Amino acid sequence: MNARNDPTTDEAAVRALIENWAQAVRAGDLPGILAHHSADMLMFDVPPPRVSRGLDAYRKTWDLFFAWSDKPVVFDIEEMHITAGSDVAFAAALMRCAGTGKDGERISLGFRLTIGLRKIGNQWTIVHEHHSVPAD
Amino acid sequence: MNARNDPTTDEAAVRALIENWAQAVRAGDLPGILAHHSADMLMFDVPPPRVSRGLDAYRKTWDLFFAWSDKPVVFDIEEMHITAGSDVAFAAALMRCAGTGKDGERISLGFRLTIGLRKIGNQWTIVHEHHSVPAD
Repeated sequence: MNARNDPTTDEAAVRALIENWAQAVRAGDLPGILAHHSADMLMFDVPPPRVSRGLDAYRKTWDLFFAWSDKPVVFDIEEMHITAGSDVAFAAALMRCAGTGKDGERISLGFRLTIGLRKIGNQWTIVHEHHSVPAD
Repeated sequence: MNARNDPTTDEAAVRALIENWAQAVRAGDLPGILAHHSADMLMFDVPPPRVSRGLDAYRKTWDLFFAWSDKPVVFDIEEMHITAGSDVAFAAALMRCAGTGKDGERISLGFRLTIGLRKIGNQWTIVHEHHSVPAD
């Protein structure tokens, strides 16, 4: 078997990449957050705008998050399902973060996250993220 | 080249499947909507709950949508990006629907959609959907 096309290896690699990314969020480590994203990535975030296009716009969504977030940062993967092929993969997760609301109250926010990845030059790379909460 | 592993063919097949699914939504055709979904699919919808697990719960999210939606149904793909491998694919789209708000006003709702698919028995199959609007 070719290790590059081993589904178990690909799933494990995607899982490790996402767990390291979430750890970088908890550490407030922006270079770590951005380490494996494509330049033309498409971001659907919890707050507006409806869509952020490209890595610069993606970076700005994290400025907004860290301005809101509790310190130390809460960014927990509660449940994650990974579907990995040899060159395309996605993950669907239930997540939790925490911050301060408009009235100063502390908010523990359960949200949903879908991540889309493509293997580029034998490196799994995030090309899409979709973060959301249910609408009222 | 093996036609089953032709990236162009796979992307076209995924695009056709999603366009047919959206057309089934516009037609209110529930069997058409459910035609290519896995039994254990994971749904993150615009309204609560946070997650719906499995095909029966997925079907109920459409009862809610059709109770709210204008007739004829608006369910337009404004922009769609497909990333397709030979056995796993995902799509990220900007969508629009329309319905009636709590105060009776007509709402044109721009939303975001991510769909995750796996090829099962040579048939592309939806295993995950994530629909959302930005939070206020």
